Amino acid sequence: MDAPGPPDDLRTQAIAGDTVGLLEGLVTTRAIRRYLPEPVPDRVLRDILFAATRAPSGSNRQPFRFLVLQHGPVAAEVKRLLAGVARSMWSVKAHLDGYDRGSGVTDDSPKARMARTMAEYVAHFEQVPVVILPCMQRYRAPDTSEGASVYPACQNLLLAARGLGYGGVITGFHGAVERELTELLGVPDNAFIASTITLGRPAGHHGPVRRRPLSELVYGDAWGTAPDWAQDPPGTRYTSAGPPRPAS
Amino acid sequence: MDAPGPPDDLRTQAIAGDTVGLLEGLVTTRAIRRYLPEPVPDRVLRDILFAATRAPSGSNRQPFRFLVLQHGPVAAEVKRLLAGVARSMWSVKAHLDGYDRGSGVTDDSPKARMARTMAEYVAHFEQVPVVILPCMQRYRAPDTSEGASVYPACQNLLLAARGLGYGGVITGFHGAVERELTELLGVPDNAFIASTITLGRPAGHHGPVRRRPLSELVYGDAWGTAPDWAQDPPGTRYTSAGPPRPAS
Repeated sequence: MDAPGPPDDLRTQAIAGDTVGLLEGLVTTRAIRRYLPEPVPDRVLRDILFAATRAPSGSNRQPFRFLVLQHGPVAAEVKRLLAGVARSMWSVKAHLDGYDRGSGVTDDSPKARMARTMAEYVAHFEQVPVVILPCMQRYRAPDTSEGASVYPACQNLLLAARGLGYGGVITGFHGAVERELTELLGVPDNAFIASTITLGRPAGHHGPVRRRPLSELVYGDAWGTAPDWAQDPPGTRYTSAGPPRPAS
Repeated sequence: MDAPGPPDDLRTQAIAGDTVGLLEGLVTTRAIRRYLPEPVPDRVLRDILFAATRAPSGSNRQPFRFLVLQHGPVAAEVKRLLAGVARSMWSVKAHLDGYDRGSGVTDDSPKARMARTMAEYVAHFEQVPVVILPCMQRYRAPDTSEGASVYPACQNLLLAARGLGYGGVITGFHGAVERELTELLGVPDNAFIASTITLGRPAGHHGPVRRRPLSELVYGDAWGTAPDWAQDPPGTRYTSAGPPRPAS
């Protein structure tokens, strides 16, 4: 990773070269919740946000806006507000979804690892290197599909982070403090905060993700009926909702 | 591109190798609306849908489902229904947004090119090689952020197509015929169609996309104020909403 130049150099600096392939990146970008205690350099942020804003949107209107919070008193206050929500939400979810008992406390299960990661993530939320609040500026009445003009950009953002050796995760922590965040940051009435993304240099690794089998998610001419070709490639990892993971 | 094997071989076939880098793909994936008259091979569809379904979703619930329509009477009826909407919607939009006058009819303007592409796209909509209807199966009451669990997968789908030499575009054509499509395809009451994606081998090319300047889309500690590093890299192309494109 190049050291960042002074900001006024970025206009002359191309975005970084690739070390990860496109398909490889799509199938190995994990939610990253454990970060090394390092700031994200300006040049990396520029590249990530440039890639995010290349995403498609309805009629190319680009109604997405990204608030990027790093250092200083406003960022600290945003992180403090979100940290409170993160800890409350995880506490409730851990209990409701059984992360605090059964396989949730078995040391080597995916569920137990997730429980430990989440506990650490919310306990130290104030220290996440970067919080990004993707927003959407509305140009018509809210509808079910308006997210088609903001969440593709959020996904580009996470993929670009992966491509640059960073990682992040989409959360909904803003929901419970949206009024406070909106006032603090001056989000106008015609816009809403679409998600809370945290970002940093991973303490762990990206790698194959766990999902349901393709045949449960892809249908042909009728709901519920998979086409013949909906077969997972070798090495696919499944969530517990899927078939048992092969012993190999 | 490899020729597709029999479907029962796909379980033993890894997804295709990369020829496009991750960041390169993110910044050069255009909306593709002109397709060569070729079917999309099973193996390519498998790889595209596999990549789509690796996208993140809230709590990894994977509420996304993809209806993939290609050949046969059901697919033909879906395309016929959508074609009618596509032609009506474009006719209205072309007039409202001035595509039928001024720079919309100047041969060499981006607007005139878009008008020609759209006219051709909707006129021959029944011939698009593949129509994909990404759906979302709800597990709670509708809210503003539910799209965070389906549109990242739509973006992965378009990016994977790019990685494999194909291309597509997200549209909202299903909106006006959602009831008919829902009945025809058996979409259950707790699910909704989130978008209409068309897909095929591009007749044109991918390449740099046009967007607003980064400093209009990315803010720091306050809405409307860009950080110093929000500077476009060399060669960035702007929409007409942005600054004039350099002559070089």
